[in-house]
Amino acid sequence: MNTHYSDRLAEAIRCRQTPAVVGIDPVLERLPAALRPKDTTCGAALEAVETFCRGVLDVLAPLVPAVKINVGFFEAFYWYGFTAYYRIVAYAHQRGLLVIGDIKRGDIGSTARQYAQGHLDHTVFDEVHELHIPDAVTLAGYLGENAVRPFIDLARRHGRGVYILVRPSEPKADEVHEFGGAQRFYQHMAGLVRRWGDDEELIGECGLSCVGAVVAPKDAESTAALRALLPRTPFLVPGYGAQGGTAESCRPCFLPDGTGAVINASRSVIYAFSKPEYAERHGGDWQACIAAAGRTFAADVAGLASG
Amino acid sequence: MNTHYSDRLAEAIRCRQTPAVVGIDPVLERLPAALRPKDTTCGAALEAVETFCRGVLDVLAPLVPAVKINVGFFEAFYWYGFTAYYRIVAYAHQRGLLVIGDIKRGDIGSTARQYAQGHLDHTVFDEVHELHIPDAVTLAGYLGENAVRPFIDLARRHGRGVYILVRPSEPKADEVHEFGGAQRFYQHMAGLVRRWGDDEELIGECGLSCVGAVVAPKDAESTAALRALLPRTPFLVPGYGAQGGTAESCRPCFLPDGTGAVINASRSVIYAFSKPEYAERHGGDWQACIAAAGRTFAADVAGLASG
Repeated sequence: MNTHYSDRLAEAIRCRQTPAVVGIDPVLERLPAALRPKDTTCGAALEAVETFCRGVLDVLAPLVPAVKINVGFFEAFYWYGFTAYYRIVAYAHQRGLLVIGDIKRGDIGSTARQYAQGHLDHTVFDEVHELHIPDAVTLAGYLGENAVRPFIDLARRHGRGVYILVRPSEPKADEVHEFGGAQRFYQHMAGLVRRWGDDEELIGECGLSCVGAVVAPKDAESTAALRALLPRTPFLVPGYGAQGGTAESCRPCFLPDGTGAVINASRSVIYAFSKPEYAERHGGDWQACIAAAGRTFAADVAGLASG
Repeated sequence: MNTHYSDRLAEAIRCRQTPAVVGIDPVLERLPAALRPKDTTCGAALEAVETFCRGVLDVLAPLVPAVKINVGFFEAFYWYGFTAYYRIVAYAHQRGLLVIGDIKRGDIGSTARQYAQGHLDHTVFDEVHELHIPDAVTLAGYLGENAVRPFIDLARRHGRGVYILVRPSEPKADEVHEFGGAQRFYQHMAGLVRRWGDDEELIGECGLSCVGAVVAPKDAESTAALRALLPRTPFLVPGYGAQGGTAESCRPCFLPDGTGAVINASRSVIYAFSKPEYAERHGGDWQACIAAAGRTFAADVAGLASG
């Protein structure tokens, strides 16, 4: 798997004709009634969560190029959940989906090397050579270059990618990211991401780096400024759907040729069966509801990628 | 376990007569020769790592009040390592040590609730009621209050604590934390930590909050300013030993009465057997080397806590 991550993602977007990515954030309390666990053990809970995830991936596989799997929703189940995370990554790959592991790790250099091995390297030990690991991961770069460099080195070597937090979708994150004067903290982080990732040997044939940025769409002007500052940086755009973003608000995240970004929606798609407009149309068929919401989302943002 | 975290930590410090905390950062390549795995499987590697960790905890238990166990060094071994992390937390507890889980998680609110369950709550499922979870965890607060609030709520409820990154020891982290003008980014983060943790219901009998800060000692003046800004915030102080910090440089992290901080050393203690001054004195006995380095460290910083 040595093809550059951004080239593989571009091909998958062309194939599915949409830059839509669905976030897999499984919460026990929100599962379809039919899947609820029968007892209060961690094992039964996790089995229900995994059944849900596989069902979600089954219906999304033909619709979107990639899924974002959030490891936090699996760590909620201690080590039981961590094994399930790797199983769900493998299942998504088997269904032909690219996988972004939403891990948001960020620690000092000596520790970052260890995290990077666990999340982006399957070549170290005999029995993990067949292990499925994500095609890209999200990272926190707040401890500086050494926190991300081990991941970037592995990404380059193994055809994988990273997305570093620049502007999160969480409104409360503004109390950190809007810090500063003429230059805001998120702009400073964007400058660091450019420095870390804008190196010829990190750029794919499509012209994009394997070092990306998480950039939530706020006002069009500031988003366009980030896009201009980071012309070779792929954006992972959160905040669509349940968090209030629209396709139009995501438009400035794309390059003029319609490449350079994927749009993520999580709860608005995978919990579509809880919304009357889907539930009424599809009865109790939770997978049909998710498929319908996935198709609507994929179509809504399709035009953004066509330039 | 509903006694306030800071009260439990204060008692353990009084009992061991030192504010020294040892960081458990096991790296396969640095293990004692006698423990090196015999094949290149992940299973053999992890068995060696666990044997090492147990041996380290055995000799440290009588010397220090707490250990900091870094989950990243276990995640390097995929889910195998994550199970070992919880086993090592349990082993440390069985040896009478308090445990700080060095996890540095930080994500938006909906995800933070999940991470918090996995790392600070063992009350949710039947079979994990006996699970050992850390007494405190480190957190990244860069996504704002919602990233830490679920952890703080659980900490308050279960007598546990959190330490939020304010000023990391990693030199490269300065490119982020020194951002700003008259007010630097790390000072802004300190102000947020004060706001999040300086609430009467979070304060223990000892006068300290269960919401702490990770504060590396830099120049004495700026450290003293952080101490003054955060009079009820317990500090976890990294950077001693392998990272160049000395007991004297840590002094401004303490309150005038000698409370308010623990000092962490990791590599300088747990890899003491690699240093000629210890190896020559104790022959090939790696545990004796670690015990000697642990005693030296504990004694070196003991005076800081006596006020």
